[in-house]
Amino acid sequence: MALVVQKFGGTSVADAERIREVADHVRRSKERGDEVVLVISAMGKETDELLTLAAAVSKTRPGREMDMLITAGERKACALVCMALHDMGIAADSFTGKQAGFATDNNHGNAKIIDVYPTRVQTALKANRVAVVAGSQGANTAEDDTFLGRGGSDTTAVALALALNADACELYTDVSGVFTTDPRVCPDARKLTSITFEELLEMTAVGCPKPAMRSVEVAQNYGVKLHIRSAFTWEQGTWVVKGDSSMEQPIIRSVTPDTTEAKITVSKVADRPGVAAALFQELAAAGVNVDMIVQNASADGITDISFTVPEEDLTLASEITHKVANNIGAKNVAADPQIARISLVGAGMKSHPGVAAKMFETLSKNNINIEMISTSPIRISCIIRQHEATTATQALHEAFGLSA
Amino acid sequence: MALVVQKFGGTSVADAERIREVADHVRRSKERGDEVVLVISAMGKETDELLTLAAAVSKTRPGREMDMLITAGERKACALVCMALHDMGIAADSFTGKQAGFATDNNHGNAKIIDVYPTRVQTALKANRVAVVAGSQGANTAEDDTFLGRGGSDTTAVALALALNADACELYTDVSGVFTTDPRVCPDARKLTSITFEELLEMTAVGCPKPAMRSVEVAQNYGVKLHIRSAFTWEQGTWVVKGDSSMEQPIIRSVTPDTTEAKITVSKVADRPGVAAALFQELAAAGVNVDMIVQNASADGITDISFTVPEEDLTLASEITHKVANNIGAKNVAADPQIARISLVGAGMKSHPGVAAKMFETLSKNNINIEMISTSPIRISCIIRQHEATTATQALHEAFGLSA
Repeated sequence: MALVVQKFGGTSVADAERIREVADHVRRSKERGDEVVLVISAMGKETDELLTLAAAVSKTRPGREMDMLITAGERKACALVCMALHDMGIAADSFTGKQAGFATDNNHGNAKIIDVYPTRVQTALKANRVAVVAGSQGANTAEDDTFLGRGGSDTTAVALALALNADACELYTDVSGVFTTDPRVCPDARKLTSITFEELLEMTAVGCPKPAMRSVEVAQNYGVKLHIRSAFTWEQGTWVVKGDSSMEQPIIRSVTPDTTEAKITVSKVADRPGVAAALFQELAAAGVNVDMIVQNASADGITDISFTVPEEDLTLASEITHKVANNIGAKNVAADPQIARISLVGAGMKSHPGVAAKMFETLSKNNINIEMISTSPIRISCIIRQHEATTATQALHEAFGLSA
Repeated sequence: MALVVQKFGGTSVADAERIREVADHVRRSKERGDEVVLVISAMGKETDELLTLAAAVSKTRPGREMDMLITAGERKACALVCMALHDMGIAADSFTGKQAGFATDNNHGNAKIIDVYPTRVQTALKANRVAVVAGSQGANTAEDDTFLGRGGSDTTAVALALALNADACELYTDVSGVFTTDPRVCPDARKLTSITFEELLEMTAVGCPKPAMRSVEVAQNYGVKLHIRSAFTWEQGTWVVKGDSSMEQPIIRSVTPDTTEAKITVSKVADRPGVAAALFQELAAAGVNVDMIVQNASADGITDISFTVPEEDLTLASEITHKVANNIGAKNVAADPQIARISLVGAGMKSHPGVAAKMFETLSKNNINIEMISTSPIRISCIIRQHEATTATQALHEAFGLSA
């Protein structure tokens, strides 16, 4: 008998039928003898709808009130899942973040969990009841509801698994696990049975539709066993495990294409201290999430700076960059949304220095020009033209022997 | 400077524009120097939509989970109203029923208020902030959310006005007050500037679209000053006052037509003890809300029993009545949805014995047959054919001098 935390959200609980499917899965888990704790986030697009409503009502969005509004979505979904379970003869209780013991800081909209005291969840389990916990929420010391932010339900699930010392934390999504690449791009992409935390973190960092990075970090830090799997096919997914240096690790785990970013290049910047800081401080203050930053080698004290931002932030980021460029005497600012980032991720890369060379060679053979390069110990990312993303992904998937 | 509790719900907060209208009204109230506490119920048809969703998910409706679901609607509306207030530069805080100090019993779906400890509301007021309280909800001793039932927001407003010792409790609706009759039936219907609690209770009891009876009873018992007014025209409405026997009271306040009921007649029942009990106990057990009951004078130990039920309960009530009729040896059961109830309400009626006679005479002059009669000290109701309701209402409104 295992204690399992199962997290469902969005499309998995989008309507009455999906909610009944989730309840039926819980029934099967119970029949196998497992104890189940559910973490549920809002139905379908409900969080987006609430944000749209708030925007229609007010330009001002006080954090406390936004959290009162947004956390209502998870409450609804939890109550409905409980009803579906009762309907199948399974006793269940819904718990808000506060009732489940999630104590957070006061940072409304993006609250951090301080601690979890899941007394009521444990009482429910002892009484052989399923505990259904509202995701991404808690309460501060004033007993006000706080929202952990988008994707916070993954963090709720991991934190609860940790607090309950659960045997596993299952994150149900609309994909059946982590693949060697996007199966829509490469039909012969393989599902990975396991992956290390480090690898998954590099993938989530480059736009792979995977668990919230924050939840993976918590799971990694505290050794929570994660299982990423599908709420539509219910098949075994991908386990996330601790990297084990004693084992021979595959060099490359996956090829990850990402076409959601855009590039900004500032030309002919004076190469002196403080120039980069001036720009990126302004961008950070405006909440623009800058990702890759590349500064070319300086020639005659003049350099170019390129960086990527999410495509939806391009207009704002361009405006800010133009303003700063004027101040620092840069010559030109170019915005370019037509880019793709192709990343290779693999923990084995650390001990195989030839990976980058092979990647560049493969792209070159396919006449694909590399515009920017950035690397981590277990990842190499190249910025290329967006229309070449499919060719690049297929070529790399083949070249590194990832095909089935 | 007055402390005013203002209650808005349903159509008054149906969309972003209406919510901003409510906020603007609060701004004007504050400018006049009033302290304002708001009670907000769910937007538009949201409660109905949540009930529909629950029905799609599950046949089982555990009370605790239904309350978790339904109370989410009020939370959303409160948060949005707060945002609209902030947008107008008015500091405001939303409070759930629990946060506003509503302690209730465990009767989920129809919880009773045990006491109100509005500490956080008072703190907000002291800081010159508008307190925005979620209607129709509280928490039980287990700290679970409880729902006070449909129309419970009126009760929240009255209970809060009482706990805060407010100067007035304003219930905003989509009509501009209490009228001498339905203005759609009689164009010369007049709005009443004041009405007694007893009169309003008789009106709410006969289907007039007025505050929840429970809230009026609480206001009457504890002397809370009620003001029923419009959230669309913002004009002065109708004040509900304590009946004052020292004042000359108008004989008749209003003519109230109600076409939402149906009639069931059981013929040739043995006139012996226990027969009526057998029938009405079964109906009560099935949750059918029986209203008027008339039993004719017995002839030869055989009698007829007629009663009215809400039209939507007619099928269920008929089935039960047929079953019981068989058991008690009654000859026939007739169901009739084509009825109307016309009521005259007025506290002055007590000291004017001729009212009933004048009512019957007026109906007779218009060739309208009376099928059932029931009376209270301040109300006379007659059941007539439904298609005669308009004629009857107009004739009585004229005969009792209620026209403008």
